[in-house]
Amino acid sequence: MRTIRVAAAQMGPIQKADSRQAVVARMLALLDQAIGQGCDLIVYPELTLTTFFPRWYMTDQAEVDTWFERAMPNEATRPLFDKAVAHKIALSLGYAELTEDGHHFNTQILTDKAGTIVGKYRKVHLPGHAEYDPERAFQHLEKRYFEPGDLGFPVWRALGGIIGMAVCNDRRWPETYRVMGLQGVEMIVLGYNTPSVNSQKAEEAGDLRMFHNHLVVQAGAYQNSCWVVSVAKAGVEDGHPLIAGSAIVNPDGVIVAQAKTEGDELIVHDCDLDATRFGKETIFNFARHRRIEHYGLITERTGAIPPPE
Amino acid sequence: MRTIRVAAAQMGPIQKADSRQAVVARMLALLDQAIGQGCDLIVYPELTLTTFFPRWYMTDQAEVDTWFERAMPNEATRPLFDKAVAHKIALSLGYAELTEDGHHFNTQILTDKAGTIVGKYRKVHLPGHAEYDPERAFQHLEKRYFEPGDLGFPVWRALGGIIGMAVCNDRRWPETYRVMGLQGVEMIVLGYNTPSVNSQKAEEAGDLRMFHNHLVVQAGAYQNSCWVVSVAKAGVEDGHPLIAGSAIVNPDGVIVAQAKTEGDELIVHDCDLDATRFGKETIFNFARHRRIEHYGLITERTGAIPPPE
Repeated sequence: MRTIRVAAAQMGPIQKADSRQAVVARMLALLDQAIGQGCDLIVYPELTLTTFFPRWYMTDQAEVDTWFERAMPNEATRPLFDKAVAHKIALSLGYAELTEDGHHFNTQILTDKAGTIVGKYRKVHLPGHAEYDPERAFQHLEKRYFEPGDLGFPVWRALGGIIGMAVCNDRRWPETYRVMGLQGVEMIVLGYNTPSVNSQKAEEAGDLRMFHNHLVVQAGAYQNSCWVVSVAKAGVEDGHPLIAGSAIVNPDGVIVAQAKTEGDELIVHDCDLDATRFGKETIFNFARHRRIEHYGLITERTGAIPPPE
Repeated sequence: MRTIRVAAAQMGPIQKADSRQAVVARMLALLDQAIGQGCDLIVYPELTLTTFFPRWYMTDQAEVDTWFERAMPNEATRPLFDKAVAHKIALSLGYAELTEDGHHFNTQILTDKAGTIVGKYRKVHLPGHAEYDPERAFQHLEKRYFEPGDLGFPVWRALGGIIGMAVCNDRRWPETYRVMGLQGVEMIVLGYNTPSVNSQKAEEAGDLRMFHNHLVVQAGAYQNSCWVVSVAKAGVEDGHPLIAGSAIVNPDGVIVAQAKTEGDELIVHDCDLDATRFGKETIFNFARHRRIEHYGLITERTGAIPPPE
């Protein structure tokens, strides 16, 4: 057994007016719980430190940039890193990253137990749109405020295993899991901010959206025989509801722990990385069963091209 | 609305001793039901015409070849094709194909309503093994008796839509759906023979195997916004149980019809191909959202290669 005791730290809503310091105070409370339960790793959601600002249309880049972090850790998050190091617990959190040379990414990091950032992932699959869309019930401007991630889907040897990351909409794309699966990933940690309402289809039921949220992570876990830790920011942010349903999924695709609330909530599970081996060595032994000579379109073609009429 | 009324024709068990003629008589009874319900298409499972013979270890190629069809239609299946043509219903069925030049494939075909074979698919992802395996509770010798399919994952314009096929284990691989999704597939029809017991893990629960059976087709349907018609051969064949659970899955990944028995059973649903459009134009608009520059490993690498220690 190579066990990681992982804490999925679901965050409740964060209002526009909430300060980074107020958010970090809530994160510290969840961290205290995780420390109390002897966790090895705590995973916070996408854009943990702020409201889900891509719902707001902004034209002033200086205003946009107030939602981004220029360094990590920084003054606001330093207490989180300090406490994690003191208690030897690894961290993963999402935030809006503004690089020194002016690039904007939707980023997730992973530290080791010494507080060193050992992995950085930048969201590849940005949903939504870049310009104000009057047809939508509300905006989803990730393509406006972020560039697509430029780091691919790396994995890292950390915490005794092979760990990868993804962010929100990435989880709906099987390519996300497969690229990591082809690097032997044993645990994928990811966070999300998912509106409870489809901005383009008001009648889409909330329970269908929750079903999709779980379906994709369960399939990704099973089809690559890895753990997936999927963590929400949930609840109503300035009138805009986000789904909850944070879940820890085993390599059989089964949800073994799930959040019950739409608020700050910790769910914990002992994830045995050796439980990934059976699937990787049998039904999903890629070397024996994959037939890459028939997969060409996946990397040759971005969009769908139907056959001629 | 472009509606295909589809019948998923689950087959109960077929014993080694059952003749092709006896099987076709059962297929005709299901076809009669489908005709009575005004169906446009009836889908039979993988290796519809015989028992799931890859569970039996054979060393005499002449004996192996008795399980294969040298032509389609042939004498045994002619009554099926004749009745389908007379009632203008399209057919899809799976069978073991022996080509004129001696190749063996696990094949599925699709006819139009005039009885012309418009599509042929040969199973790409062969599970199991090629040599007798004394470690297994029973054999699964698909890699012994079949060659991997050599036709890729084509789609066809048929029945007013874009239709693709897959066979059994193919459904567990997201590449299967994605290659067809990149060709705009609107409906995937597939059949399966799936043992109720894992030959390498006796303690694996039957309900977990059924969950996996549905999970993969639901994810494939949702992630490519297409219908999936997934049809079992089920029940106990000469002491070896196969799972049932035939299902018709909509482009949201929701099961809209499911078989209740482990025997011959028809489930019917009106599948509106235009219901695939919303997903294909929004969240799974591949042209807008896919990032093929980060998918390279999917086609470069067959097996998993973990990062250096």
